[in-house]
Amino acid sequence: MQPTLGIVGGGQLARMTQQAASVLGIDVRILASPGDEAVGPFADVTVAALDDLSAATAFAARCDVVTFDREPADPALASALAAGGARVLPDPSTLAVAADKLETRRVLAAARVPVPPFVPVGSLDDVCRATRDFGTPLVLKAARGGYDGRGVWLVEHEREIQAALATGLPLLAEPVLSLARELAVVVVRSRDGAMRTYPVVETVQVDGMCREVLAPAPIPPSMAAAATALARRVADLVGAVGILAVELFVVGDDLVVNELAPRPHNSGHWTIDGAATSQFENHLRAVLDLPLGSTDATARAVAMANVVGHEGDPRNRLADALALGPVRVHLYGKTPRPGRKIGHVTVTGHDLHEVRALATRAAGVLAGHTAEVAR
Amino acid sequence: MQPTLGIVGGGQLARMTQQAASVLGIDVRILASPGDEAVGPFADVTVAALDDLSAATAFAARCDVVTFDREPADPALASALAAGGARVLPDPSTLAVAADKLETRRVLAAARVPVPPFVPVGSLDDVCRATRDFGTPLVLKAARGGYDGRGVWLVEHEREIQAALATGLPLLAEPVLSLARELAVVVVRSRDGAMRTYPVVETVQVDGMCREVLAPAPIPPSMAAAATALARRVADLVGAVGILAVELFVVGDDLVVNELAPRPHNSGHWTIDGAATSQFENHLRAVLDLPLGSTDATARAVAMANVVGHEGDPRNRLADALALGPVRVHLYGKTPRPGRKIGHVTVTGHDLHEVRALATRAAGVLAGHTAEVAR
Repeated sequence: MQPTLGIVGGGQLARMTQQAASVLGIDVRILASPGDEAVGPFADVTVAALDDLSAATAFAARCDVVTFDREPADPALASALAAGGARVLPDPSTLAVAADKLETRRVLAAARVPVPPFVPVGSLDDVCRATRDFGTPLVLKAARGGYDGRGVWLVEHEREIQAALATGLPLLAEPVLSLARELAVVVVRSRDGAMRTYPVVETVQVDGMCREVLAPAPIPPSMAAAATALARRVADLVGAVGILAVELFVVGDDLVVNELAPRPHNSGHWTIDGAATSQFENHLRAVLDLPLGSTDATARAVAMANVVGHEGDPRNRLADALALGPVRVHLYGKTPRPGRKIGHVTVTGHDLHEVRALATRAAGVLAGHTAEVAR
Repeated sequence: MQPTLGIVGGGQLARMTQQAASVLGIDVRILASPGDEAVGPFADVTVAALDDLSAATAFAARCDVVTFDREPADPALASALAAGGARVLPDPSTLAVAADKLETRRVLAAARVPVPPFVPVGSLDDVCRATRDFGTPLVLKAARGGYDGRGVWLVEHEREIQAALATGLPLLAEPVLSLARELAVVVVRSRDGAMRTYPVVETVQVDGMCREVLAPAPIPPSMAAAATALARRVADLVGAVGILAVELFVVGDDLVVNELAPRPHNSGHWTIDGAATSQFENHLRAVLDLPLGSTDATARAVAMANVVGHEGDPRNRLADALALGPVRVHLYGKTPRPGRKIGHVTVTGHDLHEVRALATRAAGVLAGHTAEVAR
């Protein structure tokens, strides 16, 4: 029998993985949290609180393989399920390295993978020492739990530092880096260590949240090759199975690895419409021990723009967005709230500037940021 | 509010339409029959017998637009729902013309659209007269209810004729045509009459069932243009809204229109992986009054091969099929039975012979017809 895949997570990653699975005829069960909206169209959804281990255990018992499409994944939950006999992929140890920014940096640095300068901080004294090394303002990051710009503070004065320390989260300090660009490499790695990488992309961040992805990144081939080689090393190092997104900073001419996401990732959404095999299908293939699919781009230039919640139902603006031209619209069924990713738009073509302009415009129309277009 | 779409049908057409809808974030409800398996992954499925008008009426009352992804659609049910106030698209009159082969021929012939020679028959005498005009053997077709080769008889002897007459179905007789090829044109037509056509395809039939689709059809541009023009005339004539597949015979150098399918159709499955907008998304766009999407092919050559049920679970052969190369596999979640379409494979590329060979090989592996490939 073909195995049943369990997905822990009820957001857009689970939604898009389910879409890929239903095309292949693969049976999927989803474990979602109360209030998760993106998996509404699907039948086999179990709803339980994030910390309900008995519900998760019962869910895992009905699955042959369990994967985590939740950002951030909970390595403790994954470990508990694995200890209970579930086949969890990627391995909980991979999730643990990626879920903790300090651990990520330590593991990578120990293997001589370049990372930004960093130091763990736990007190005002630690932070003061860090400012002597790294200057001010200083970046403080929560080691765990932050995403989309949350859990990151730019601090200069004692009051700001105390506010970050008061969260009680383990923190790391790093200098403000002058970034030439941010890049990402999406790797898919199979159980037996076979790997394929998608073309290196540039991610365009606003307030710490990814807004646009440009594929391929407009960088020299030598830099793309170096980024790809680094990502492959990292995927081997952390024993990734399935998709691993490796986020990199370009500082001067140097590459440093910033963060790891051991799951389908925003920097790979463009692959649904712009690559031979989507990251979601390749994640499924990897964790289910099926041959990996081609990661080649199917167009010379691909741009993805996130639809970031504003107000009103984006579906009411679908006609206006589709009227703009050849845009691929993905909406996640989520209620719009400011700063919430509720969809994305992909445009494929020949010229990166053109596809980027159209994707951004359509995403803006869907978000309600832009005046509606006359039809 | 964006309208809710109701789909009557629980087969692969409903499944693939739902997949397209969930990408766009469009809410879909499905009315399926007991035993329909292909819509298993979806949450909002109502199950009722095909002839349960009260269940269908209650279903339609919860939808803003109702469409039929069932082959054959039931025009009487559609009319009853429309009479009850439901917005049914395409119009029940379009469904009625397409659902009855005699009616199709009469309507097209009256508008001087070329159709094969035909005559309605209801008795042995009628059939004998038809053999004088058309020769023997003769083709008898049930005017209603046949598909995938069912409801078609090649008759020569009285016993065969009596067997066809004994079905009690209205029949038509036609000569055995010497077909150079069979073609199909998939048209999408909006509520306001805007139209787009996909590239003309060749359909390869085995025992009356479509097995392969080649896009574009290997025919001269003049013939493709003529087929497209005919299909557009027919779509206007029957007032299609959404997808209309127009099936044509090439007899000598002439084109005749054989059948109409007012819904996403097997001859358009290749568009999911090989066109800028799939037929399923364009069907949704048309019936929901959204701008139509580009119908351009995204590759020079596309081949689609059906996976026709044999025995065993095709998912157990997924690894072997995916190992063959860049194939796009679609499985419908249906239990394999001989002669049942349980999936399809699409291959895109540059050379029609190459993509056809790979698609056919992968479909054969999935069906279990071919020896498994060493991995």
